[in-house]
Order: sequence, then C-alpha cells, then structure tokens
Amino acid sequence: MNEATRVPLDESRIPHDWYNIVADLPVPPPPPLHPGTLRPVGPDDLAPLFPSDLIEQEVCADRHVTIPASVRDVYRLWRPTPLIRARRLERALGTPARIYYKYEGGSPSGSHKPNTAVPQAYYNARSGVRRLTTETGAGQWGSALAFACAQYDIECEVWMVRASHDQKPHRASLMRVYGATVHASPSPMTETGRKILAEHPGSPGSLGIAISEAVEVAASAPDTRYALGSVLNHVLLHQTVIGEEALEQLASIGEVPDVIVGCTGGGSNFGGLTFPFMRERLAGRMNPVIRAVEPEACPSFTQGAYAYDFGDTAGLTPLLKMHTLGHGFIPDPIHAGGLRYHGMSPLLSHIYELGMFEAVAKSQTECFEAGLRFARTEGIVPAPEPTHALAEVVAEALRCKESGESKVLLTALCGHGHFDLNAYERYLSGRMEDHALPRDRIEAALAGLPVL
Amino acid sequence: MNEATRVPLDESRIPHDWYNIVADLPVPPPPPLHPGTLRPVGPDDLAPLFPSDLIEQEVCADRHVTIPASVRDVYRLWRPTPLIRARRLERALGTPARIYYKYEGGSPSGSHKPNTAVPQAYYNARSGVRRLTTETGAGQWGSALAFACAQYDIECEVWMVRASHDQKPHRASLMRVYGATVHASPSPMTETGRKILAEHPGSPGSLGIAISEAVEVAASAPDTRYALGSVLNHVLLHQTVIGEEALEQLASIGEVPDVIVGCTGGGSNFGGLTFPFMRERLAGRMNPVIRAVEPEACPSFTQGAYAYDFGDTAGLTPLLKMHTLGHGFIPDPIHAGGLRYHGMSPLLSHIYELGMFEAVAKSQTECFEAGLRFARTEGIVPAPEPTHALAEVVAEALRCKESGESKVLLTALCGHGHFDLNAYERYLSGRMEDHALPRDRIEAALAGLPVL
Repeated sequence: MNEATRVPLDESRIPHDWYNIVADLPVPPPPPLHPGTLRPVGPDDLAPLFPSDLIEQEVCADRHVTIPASVRDVYRLWRPTPLIRARRLERALGTPARIYYKYEGGSPSGSHKPNTAVPQAYYNARSGVRRLTTETGAGQWGSALAFACAQYDIECEVWMVRASHDQKPHRASLMRVYGATVHASPSPMTETGRKILAEHPGSPGSLGIAISEAVEVAASAPDTRYALGSVLNHVLLHQTVIGEEALEQLASIGEVPDVIVGCTGGGSNFGGLTFPFMRERLAGRMNPVIRAVEPEACPSFTQGAYAYDFGDTAGLTPLLKMHTLGHGFIPDPIHAGGLRYHGMSPLLSHIYELGMFEAVAKSQTECFEAGLRFARTEGIVPAPEPTHALAEVVAEALRCKESGESKVLLTALCGHGHFDLNAYERYLSGRMEDHALPRDRIEAALAGLPVL
Repeated sequence: MNEATRVPLDESRIPHDWYNIVADLPVPPPPPLHPGTLRPVGPDDLAPLFPSDLIEQEVCADRHVTIPASVRDVYRLWRPTPLIRARRLERALGTPARIYYKYEGGSPSGSHKPNTAVPQAYYNARSGVRRLTTETGAGQWGSALAFACAQYDIECEVWMVRASHDQKPHRASLMRVYGATVHASPSPMTETGRKILAEHPGSPGSLGIAISEAVEVAASAPDTRYALGSVLNHVLLHQTVIGEEALEQLASIGEVPDVIVGCTGGGSNFGGLTFPFMRERLAGRMNPVIRAVEPEACPSFTQGAYAYDFGDTAGLTPLLKMHTLGHGFIPDPIHAGGLRYHGMSPLLSHIYELGMFEAVAKSQTECFEAGLRFARTEGIVPAPEPTHALAEVVAEALRCKESGESKVLLTALCGHGHFDLNAYERYLSGRMEDHALPRDRIEAALAGLPVL
C-alpha cells in the first residue's frame, strides 16, 4: 500500500477487452422467452431492435470480447477513471478501514453510462444504422447516448418521461447540446403516445410508456434501432471496464478488497464494478464480500420474486427471468431515479441466486445523510443513486471502527450530483421522506406476474 | 510528442510552490492607493479583511511561495488536473494545429476556483478566523469557498446577487450542501442591504452591493474575515498551479506551446495559466504568443482605460491601477457571469502594459458556437467563460489550416457547463443576443473614473 490519494493508471491501460462473466459461471443463466410461444427468443426476434454485433454479445459465451479501437479512442476522453482513497472521509469517521472509490462522474455526461453508450453507438453506426431511439427517466442515460451518437455522427431521438422533462429541463438541454432530439413522453409522434394522450391528456408519463414509444419508432422506421442503458447482458459487459481498471489500480498499490459495495437499479453499475472481482474470487485469488444496495422503495433483490416477467410496463419485451416486483409496480418517486426499476438484470439475478453476492436495502434519508457527509469531506457531491452504496460503505466503516478491523472497502461513485441539487435541498430543509414498502403493496404487485 | 490523449502527471508532481511573477518583472506593479490619502495602502489597512499570511502574499517579492502541506493534501482530491489533447476537435476542424486544454472542471465545485479557495480557507483557519464572508454572482466562487471552508471546519457566509440567487437556486443549494449559509443580496442583515431595500424593495442586487455586504460583516464581526475569488495578487498566485502543471505535462511529451489562450474576467484563470509560461519566455526557454480573450460586452483590456479606479461599485475598496471600464459600469447580462467585471487584475493590467500579452474581444454567439462544437467533439460541455478562449482557439486553428502551420495551441478549460445549460438552450433555440458595446457607453462610463 502506498500513500497516494488518487491511484493513477496510464492511458495505455484502458482495458482492451470487456469481461463476460457468463463464461465462468457454473450454470448458464436462463434464456429470455418469447411471450407468445414461451420459447427462447432468437436473433431474428431481436434484429428489428439491435444490430447483429450487440445481439451476438447478448448471447456470447466467450470470456473476453475485444473492445474496438474506435471505442477505446472515445473512452480516452475520460478513461481511465481515477480510483480515489477517501482519506478525509476515513478521518471524519475515525475508522481503521481503508475506503476506495472508483469515480465515474468525470465522464462527459457525468455518470458511468457512456461506457456502454459509446460501443452501442459504434456498433449501430458500423452496421449502417442512421438513428437510435431510446427512453430516459431523469436523463442520465439519454444524455450519455446523445453524447455517443455525436461521436459517430448518427441521430439520437430520446423519449423523456414528461414529468422529468418538465421538472428537469437542464437534462433535456444537455441532450440537445449533443445534438439529440428530445420528446416529452407520452408524445403525439407514436401510436402508443397518441392513444395515451387521448385517454389522459395530462399524463405525466412513465418509463414504461417511454420505452414503448422508443421501441415502436425503432421497430417501424428504416435505418433506426433502439438502445437500452442497463439490464441487458451486453450493457453489463461494456461496463466491466470499471471493475477491470479498479482491479489493476488496487493491485498497483498492493491492496486487496475485503468488501465491495455497489448500488443496483437495472444492474449495470454493479455488474460493471463487481464482475471482474467475482472472476478473481472464482479463481481463488481473493475473497471479497460483495454487496448490492437497493432503495427500500424498490427492493427487487431483497423483497422481489425470482420469476419470468416483462422488462417494461406495457409488456412489449421478451419475458426475462429476474428479481422483480412485478412489471405493474410503480416505485414511489424517490430521488434516485436510476434505481426506480421494477426488475433487475437477469444475469445479475441469476448470479444472486448462485449465492455470489449479498443484497441490502437502504432508506432515502440514510443515503442522503451519507451523501452529504461524503460531499463535505471528499468534495464530490454524489448523485442520489451512489449515495446508496456510500451509506453501506459508511455503515461498514463504522463496523470496522467497532471491531478494530482495517478492512479494504471498494465502491463505485457512478455519477456526480450537480443535476440533483434540488434533492439535496429537500434533505437539508428537512422535507425529505422515506418510502419503506409495506408488504401488502409488494404482494399486490407480485400478484400481477405473468402465469407461464 | 507521443500519442496520448490525456497527458498524465503523478500526484507527487502537484506543485510544491506557487509562482510569483512579480519577482521577474522589469518594473514592479503600481501599488493600491488609499482613496482618502492617495498613499499606498499598508498591511494595517487590510488587516480587518484578510489574515496576515495573505496580506504578505499580496505584497510578496519572492519568486516562489511554498504551498502548505495541508493545502497540497486537499489539492489531491482533484489535482493534478488532466492536460487533454483535443484530437477529435482537431479532426473536426481539419487543422494541422495540435490543441491542448488543461481541464479544471473536475474539481469538487466544477471550476478552477478551489485552487485559491482552499489556501484562503487554510490561512484564515490557521490564524484563528472562525468565519469567512464573500460575495458571489453566478455562484462559482461561492461554492468553491463553501467547499474549502468545509475542509477546514470554518463557517462560510455568502451574499449572492439576488437575481442569480432566484434564477439559479441550484448554485445556492450546492453551497448549502457544503455547509455554507447563503443570503440573497441585498439582504436585511447589513446596513448597506437595509438601506438599499428601504429605497428599492425589489432590488435585483449587483456584485458591487454583495461585496459591500460581505465586507461590512467581515470588518465589524469578531473572528470574521473576507475572501475574494479573483483580481488580487494572492489569488493569481494560488492559481499558478494550473500553468505549472501544464508546463510539466507539455514537457513530458516534448511539446512547446506556440500560442496560449485564456479568458479574462478578473484575471485569475488567465494569470494562473500563463504566468509560468511568461517566466519561461523571459528566461528564453520558449517564445509563445500569449493572448487574453474578453467578452465584447465587457472589454476592459481592449477598450478600457488604464487608470486608478475602485474595485467595487460602491467605492469601498482601495484604488487599484487597472484596465477598467469605470466602477459605475454595469455590463450587459451575458451568460459568462464570471467575465462581467468592470475592472481587471492590477497585476495582469501592469503586465499587459509591459506588452507581455495580447488581448482580443469576442461576441457571445461566436463563443457559444465554439462551445457547442467543443461539446460535440470532446464531450465536455464548457462553461460560458472558457467558451471565449475556445472561440479564439478555434479561430487560431482555422488560421493554421489556412497557412498549413502545425502550431501547438494551449488553453485552460476552467469549468464545466452543467450549471449553464439554460444558456446553451437559448443559443440552440436562436434566442441568444450579442452585446457589442457602443463607444459612447464606454465613454460615459469612463467619465466616472476617480480624479486623483
């Protein structure tokens, strides 16, 4: 262990491969099913939505997938990202633990999302696609994809949940700065949108509706495909650059993690951070405890069912075997918009069932308390999503203080909170609420799971 | 020259000294004068506002000033900052020029301001000060000082121009996240504020009023001092970490700058970037052209007088010999709030008179056009202030394209634009205006200069 605060990594050490954990699992994950036939979906089912390279990555069994030179070239704009020792937080907590965070908020759009947006734009551009559609809630994914599309000179069209679009105009502006077209959803541009607007002219929209609109346009227009920012295997694959770099940075200072903590919404940040460490653990080279943190308002791992369910609210996607609260479940409006998803990455869900990591749920106020503590010591204001991981890191560090153990803790700070200051304002003024989920609401939501 | 996009610098290479250019000037800069006696102000005049360490730095003749270990320790949270080769912008412009930018937007508050906020908080804390007051316009300086005060556990009280306070609530929230108290100015807490509110209950405030309020409180309360974010010698001194790092980073890849460009408001970013390069030029080790860029709405170098004037609107400060448009001049409301200052650093003004750099003025739309081009190629959305430098870098790169010269261009991207997306939105929607200054308005403003 040396005394560095920021652990450097040379640009030449940006990973050359993404790591595909499927190759190392004792049991392969269950396949997605076609909701009509209940048979595994094939490449033809996905071709209207995704280019062949991404479909291949979705079902890939190879351990490593080469990162195209062009993608590495764009990664260079912000990668390798720093691994930072949180010395000032450690001191404030009085803990003997050594806390490291991998900071992904220095990317152009301010989060880890460009790690997958860039290759998705690249593969689409390479296969002749001229336009990508997507949905976005709070806007992190939409702005990442808009940035990526600007790099490959393809159009980007984003359906943004109307409530967010109206409340967070700056996010839509960021997408437009990158050249994207942004529609408030429901929009009059699609069948789905028109139908909903006719019934509910004032509809605030939902992620489910926005997905339907983006998918509808992609499926029906020429040279147009659809992009998703989490959940799918190829998305988690792309995010493994986070963990690969962190692994090398820790090794360079002789540190071995004892506990790895990440927040989970659809799973892309958590999978990206932890998969390379799971590989090392499978190979017997280290033995960290790995822990997912989810909001108590949307506890898919800790309170959901492991079952086949739809990925979207409207039921347009294949059936995915995952931890889910039911596709009809609408999470309360917590500020961590990126964690408000009824389901979970099927790959992560399978790995959870294999017992390869733990999961805990946290209340919103505990998370913001940790976020504020972090900002005042480490300087960076965290986005609401990673405050969930930070709350658990703080709790673990305080347990170390109790026990006297000098554990090495690692987390990913997946985005900055400069777009989320209204949420901090609520916390500071004592107006923030918690949203623990009563068991009967979960049971009602789970009752809506598809019967196979 | 190697092929890196981001030029690394090891944490151990954070500068150990700030560089004081005064030691190398052929003629010392004219002293500030007491407005009553018209004699140079002494340490006693400044003691109610600043701690002795900073007063000493203000008049220091030593070439190097040691950076305290504690300050370097906080710098480590984001320094060294990356020097990035703008390869994708070069390609988009089709220029043979090689463009490098030093990126300061990765700091906790998103700009270069913490480089001086941290030592100012440190020296104040060390001398027993319990509270710092300051003013802020758009909020960059206020949030940097709030962050720095959190690091040294001293209170921070910010008077924020009411118009900005009401229009940019997120900036005030950021200051509160760091633990600061924020008042809209004019406020009922000061003599000055009460007087103005009595006369103009709806006053939108001004930087001049906010300065008066912060100074009034600092001068009259125990254990309280005042902090300024630009203009003064000690502020520019602290910012030389930018140039020192850039110098070393360029040297590490065998590059020598031909043209160095920076934006100027009060001068802290420009001085911080260029002073170390001026030293190298004075020593005959390189011969770059150095160029300041100011907004055409506030052209102190290119159209102002070089004269003794007040630093604030109300006339409470010492008289400073500087390039000024007159302390009564109110710049039009351009989006680059950090460049809306009637005067200029006296040290930079003196150096300009010595012929050591050039200055040009740019229109707001040309700047935003460059900012947008930069965002779509390099990914980072620049704050409105550094778009002025980028506009000149683009112009220079296009001149290189014309002439076929492979010049090495260097600039500082002193802040990100995630808080300024409303300004980009205006530009994108065609609603942005230019504010060229008619000569008669300048002459009217200059007529108000103090007669000595």
